[in-house]
Amino acid sequence: MTRTTGPGAGTASAEVSSAPRRGRPRDAARDRALLEATLAVLAESGYRGLTTAAVAARAGVSTATLYRRWSSKEDLVVAAAATVTEGPCDPPGTGSLEGDLRVVLRDKAAVMTGESGRLMRALVGEAACNPVLAGALTVAFLEPVYRRVAEVVRCAVERGEIPPVENPDLLGEIVVGPVMSRFLLTPDPPERVPADAARAEADRFLPFVLRAVGGTPRT
Amino acid sequence: MTRTTGPGAGTASAEVSSAPRRGRPRDAARDRALLEATLAVLAESGYRGLTTAAVAARAGVSTATLYRRWSSKEDLVVAAAATVTEGPCDPPGTGSLEGDLRVVLRDKAAVMTGESGRLMRALVGEAACNPVLAGALTVAFLEPVYRRVAEVVRCAVERGEIPPVENPDLLGEIVVGPVMSRFLLTPDPPERVPADAARAEADRFLPFVLRAVGGTPRT
Repeated sequence: MTRTTGPGAGTASAEVSSAPRRGRPRDAARDRALLEATLAVLAESGYRGLTTAAVAARAGVSTATLYRRWSSKEDLVVAAAATVTEGPCDPPGTGSLEGDLRVVLRDKAAVMTGESGRLMRALVGEAACNPVLAGALTVAFLEPVYRRVAEVVRCAVERGEIPPVENPDLLGEIVVGPVMSRFLLTPDPPERVPADAARAEADRFLPFVLRAVGGTPRT
Repeated sequence: MTRTTGPGAGTASAEVSSAPRRGRPRDAARDRALLEATLAVLAESGYRGLTTAAVAARAGVSTATLYRRWSSKEDLVVAAAATVTEGPCDPPGTGSLEGDLRVVLRDKAAVMTGESGRLMRALVGEAACNPVLAGALTVAFLEPVYRRVAEVVRCAVERGEIPPVENPDLLGEIVVGPVMSRFLLTPDPPERVPADAARAEADRFLPFVLRAVGGTPRT
């Protein structure tokens, strides 16, 4: 969906492109500059105040250069947000359903708090009246974590830890919905929640979520 | 928090005030006119475009009359939304945890879809950058349903249906968080979900939610 989805991806593409030619990998650097400019303009002007012209000017490129990379303001903003908020997508592979769910919940709580939480909350708020942004957010943030949850549960069923669940398409909402509600639908600013408090809060949800999918908490 | 929280409350106060004096109960009628004007201006201009002056003008009263009833734009809008979106608050009293949770989930799905869903989504979106509105929404919509959930679970524990849960303060998020995520965090407009589809969707969440709080689905 986006060319660069995080600092890691940027580095990887820089390494690849440095093989055939010398010097700085110009495209990856320009991607990064544009995404950083997007975050800076977003912080200053908010989503509605952000224009692609302001982002291009700040990054020192033309708007044509910007639009060759991202076809809309929505795509650009979601790509920039992903560099800050993107959590791991692979199944944790701890070997147990409880261990895997603990990691999934902690990762989601981390994304929903701190600076990434502030950004996510602003975008989710804006998405309430912007279906294009809502769609881009769903593809970039919701679907990957829902797939991760489904995979974690599928592996647990395969290991014989739990019986198959009745409505697997609801697993994403069941597992991360409570944590998202906890940090999204509250007057408390998510950026003020320290990382260790977010992790502890995620752990408190674990026994409920584990039982919900058919597991038995150890404690 | 508000003087009138629904058509029912308005009727009750009209009955009370009709006893000592004759004729139309002017205050309740004025409350209703102001709340209806608020919903009309909200539909036309959105939350940001709404001014208390426009609402007062539309209802044919002074802004002073409006501010005697609601002290801020946020309170006024939440009170108006409550006339459309407020679900039942009392424990359903079906006699079983599964029956009670079914009612709670169906009621929440009904509020999150249709015309009330459209309104809730717009307000939740706005609340992302308006802490005063977020606080008013929490008091008016989140806390009552969370209290209802806690009471349903408390009764089930008292009946011996389930053991006490480990973190009762999370019950609200655990029970209605998945349904709220389902209808809030999606590009699909909640106003297009028919009532019977919302109810069926709520029922699909029931076995997960029942297990989460320690119950056993019958099927």
